[in-house]
Amino acid sequence: MLTHLALCSIPDPKKVLLIGGGDGGILREISRHSSVEHIDICELDQMVIDVYSEFFPDIAVGYEDPRVHVHISDGVAFINSVPEGTYDVIISDAFPAMGHSADVLADECFLESVAKALRPGGVFSAPADSLWHKNFVVADTIANCKKIFKGSVNYAWTTVPTYASGVIGFMLCSTEGPPVNFKHPINKLNPEKNGVAKGPTKFYNPEIHAAAFCLPSFVDKVD
Amino acid sequence: MLTHLALCSIPDPKKVLLIGGGDGGILREISRHSSVEHIDICELDQMVIDVYSEFFPDIAVGYEDPRVHVHISDGVAFINSVPEGTYDVIISDAFPAMGHSADVLADECFLESVAKALRPGGVFSAPADSLWHKNFVVADTIANCKKIFKGSVNYAWTTVPTYASGVIGFMLCSTEGPPVNFKHPINKLNPEKNGVAKGPTKFYNPEIHAAAFCLPSFVDKVD
Repeated sequence: MLTHLALCSIPDPKKVLLIGGGDGGILREISRHSSVEHIDICELDQMVIDVYSEFFPDIAVGYEDPRVHVHISDGVAFINSVPEGTYDVIISDAFPAMGHSADVLADECFLESVAKALRPGGVFSAPADSLWHKNFVVADTIANCKKIFKGSVNYAWTTVPTYASGVIGFMLCSTEGPPVNFKHPINKLNPEKNGVAKGPTKFYNPEIHAAAFCLPSFVDKVD
Repeated sequence: MLTHLALCSIPDPKKVLLIGGGDGGILREISRHSSVEHIDICELDQMVIDVYSEFFPDIAVGYEDPRVHVHISDGVAFINSVPEGTYDVIISDAFPAMGHSADVLADECFLESVAKALRPGGVFSAPADSLWHKNFVVADTIANCKKIFKGSVNYAWTTVPTYASGVIGFMLCSTEGPPVNFKHPINKLNPEKNGVAKGPTKFYNPEIHAAAFCLPSFVDKVD
């Protein structure tokens, strides 16, 4: 979901940066997108890659995509080193979910670095807290992101039974430029073109994409 | 959700039967629907009503609706005693979720009794198993229901953090007659008219209604 909510929301994404996600699963999902020409992954810990490659080959299969370029370094340092406007999509799977108090991603400097590294109308996708968590205020996190991302900012969620409260959240943000409507995916995945994945997605589809943006009434959203 | 997925899917529901649900919470939710003229509740155990009335008044408030008629008896016997075509809506909150193996609701005789007690194009709503549960095959449960309910049959789900896997499922069925499209609610709740409830719904809204019918790809659905 984290991958496709971003990549299915803009036409022909070409250059993608993944911060963290060293297990390779997100790379596998990016691999389904045939428009993508270049994938950078910035992972802090080589051992994550080695362990997944040895013990979880169905997840680490993402590294088999020839478009993938691995950078073993700190994600914050890496993103500050790339030229402005480099990426169409940046996916973060490196920090605590957005909305947590001691949250690197809530650090405005980091979000500004992400926004600078994106082209106009580029998109950023990161895990966010569960809508059920008492201290998580969706509207506050949206407001924080809107200070930096001048395009669209939305919260989404779906079911993950092993996560606390059974829910994973997502923040989807776009920079100023061509408008992005995250709620209605413009790319559909082709079930015949799965890149290095062994078959079509088991979870994601366009309906579950749109449904992820429908929130219970108690979530005081701003969007 | 169990209540509004049914009551928001048909125009002007008037006569409603609730089997089980003695705590009063579903009655409170039915109470928001101003078209409803008569609500029967068939609860096996008077003590459920008494305990909720004493200790959980915000839930038991449903009994304060003057349209409510309480029947302390067995739901199966009750439903077999009413004339055919009596109800616009029947809601069950009495048995194990549909999809479990030792499932009263999978008993065709009971489902036939429900279908007979509904008017043509009337709707039945019951909890179903979680889409994550390994032994639950959504397509099988839909197929079983379609043997009895010749209108629409759909599976829906939403998030409940305290339920196993964080998900509750629902079966929505309609009898032959005026067509019912569960996926697109035709009634919107009026936030100014809440019956005996103290305020508007905290969870349900038309968007979360429609989203409940969007299923992950691994759910091999038939509908």
